[in-house]
Amino acid sequence: MDRHSLTTGELVRQACRSGALAEQTSGLASGFAQANLVILPKSLAFDFLEFCQRNPKPCPLLEVTEPGNPVPQLTAPSADLRSDLPRYRVWENGELVEEPTDISHRWQDDFVSFLIGCSFTFERALLQAQIPVRHVELGVNVPMYCTNRPCQSAGVFHGPLVVSMRPLNPADAIRAVQITSRYPSVHGAPVHLGLPEQLGITNLARPDFGDAVPVGDHELPVFWACGVTPQAAVMAAKPPLVITHCPGCMFVTDVLDETLAAG
Amino acid sequence: MDRHSLTTGELVRQACRSGALAEQTSGLASGFAQANLVILPKSLAFDFLEFCQRNPKPCPLLEVTEPGNPVPQLTAPSADLRSDLPRYRVWENGELVEEPTDISHRWQDDFVSFLIGCSFTFERALLQAQIPVRHVELGVNVPMYCTNRPCQSAGVFHGPLVVSMRPLNPADAIRAVQITSRYPSVHGAPVHLGLPEQLGITNLARPDFGDAVPVGDHELPVFWACGVTPQAAVMAAKPPLVITHCPGCMFVTDVLDETLAAG
Repeated sequence: MDRHSLTTGELVRQACRSGALAEQTSGLASGFAQANLVILPKSLAFDFLEFCQRNPKPCPLLEVTEPGNPVPQLTAPSADLRSDLPRYRVWENGELVEEPTDISHRWQDDFVSFLIGCSFTFERALLQAQIPVRHVELGVNVPMYCTNRPCQSAGVFHGPLVVSMRPLNPADAIRAVQITSRYPSVHGAPVHLGLPEQLGITNLARPDFGDAVPVGDHELPVFWACGVTPQAAVMAAKPPLVITHCPGCMFVTDVLDETLAAG
Repeated sequence: MDRHSLTTGELVRQACRSGALAEQTSGLASGFAQANLVILPKSLAFDFLEFCQRNPKPCPLLEVTEPGNPVPQLTAPSADLRSDLPRYRVWENGELVEEPTDISHRWQDDFVSFLIGCSFTFERALLQAQIPVRHVELGVNVPMYCTNRPCQSAGVFHGPLVVSMRPLNPADAIRAVQITSRYPSVHGAPVHLGLPEQLGITNLARPDFGDAVPVGDHELPVFWACGVTPQAAVMAAKPPLVITHCPGCMFVTDVLDETLAAG
């Protein structure tokens, strides 16, 4: 599998469908927006949609499919969400039961798929502006932290805001606010910067998810709302059945990152 | 003099011209942009114009007049810059020699007037977004600091970047970056936040100009480029003759603050 040949969303999805790609999608199809996936039965879909609507910074919806239809008509009309991600996670009552590369055998006529914007889009915009992104430089996962700030709950879904952190010098932090403000559908502007204790984060070296990265004395930790927030809310609700992408194994759309820019 | 009656730039300027107003203009003609004034003979005007061009954040030019013409055709075509400010300062070889309310007696055919954007415009935008501005709440002058960052020099003009500081909580600081980014012609986005020592500022309680304001533990100091920068550069050059506004006694234009917004 030559990852460099996967230059579009369509090519990545074909590689997933054929079984050639079963690993993380970071760096693939540069310029095409990638998305987090949550699949729930319709009985829970309204609550979850309302949760996303009430918490748009951690849960920016790129698309919500018709019940039972595995095709995301708006963001990748040639795709099939049952096969076009590298790897999935199937959860029953909050327990991980399976990590398949295809979920056709689990599909239900009442499934609703939620595609949620991913920070890869704004990280690309930062890198294009020559703003260094530490975890990308180090080749590790972005550090993520549960905060002391509860999301607005909706039905059975509730939980803390989860944030990702990127250390930046003050001038780059200001520029990063400007750049990421242009991308409200992929978490948008930071939610916080500079004073992690206000978020209930006592030790930046111990993220709740992902990997720790060093923060220099000359830098501020800058925090963005994170797509792990809706996943954590779903897991906390322990629904009978939910399917998500496997961490890092995102759905690659046909949408250009640049078309997600608000201005 | 009922300050509340001075609701437009035109009314403020008439009050200055008649001698009824000889004090600071903060809060007057709400919604109309106010400007810093620097008047130099044409022999120095090119150097100063180049200094402003090279340092647009501290020196955002709203208008540069034709040599000898005291009328700012673009920003207030009914105005006369010789009489329409509350009070002026006349400097000879770097020494303050006079603080008149009219400079007709000093006017020269080779005078060029520079009108430089003022932070009142973006402070109004912050207040309209319910972002508290500490020095406005306390009724004092904004604290200003000379930094360790030299401006780009031009001819005889050189000097440090001078910044103003407003303490904000992290969420308001992010919002303030977004709001003030819309106003590039009045200093625009902050130049720094959170780590004053990087600017060579060792004690926030001792500003070089203006008044100290308290910074809470929950707040970050946010720094904007300041219109005192060009004035300091002019003073350091000790030109034979320069005329400026008296601190706080600004020129009030016909330009609406809102028309200065870039988007």
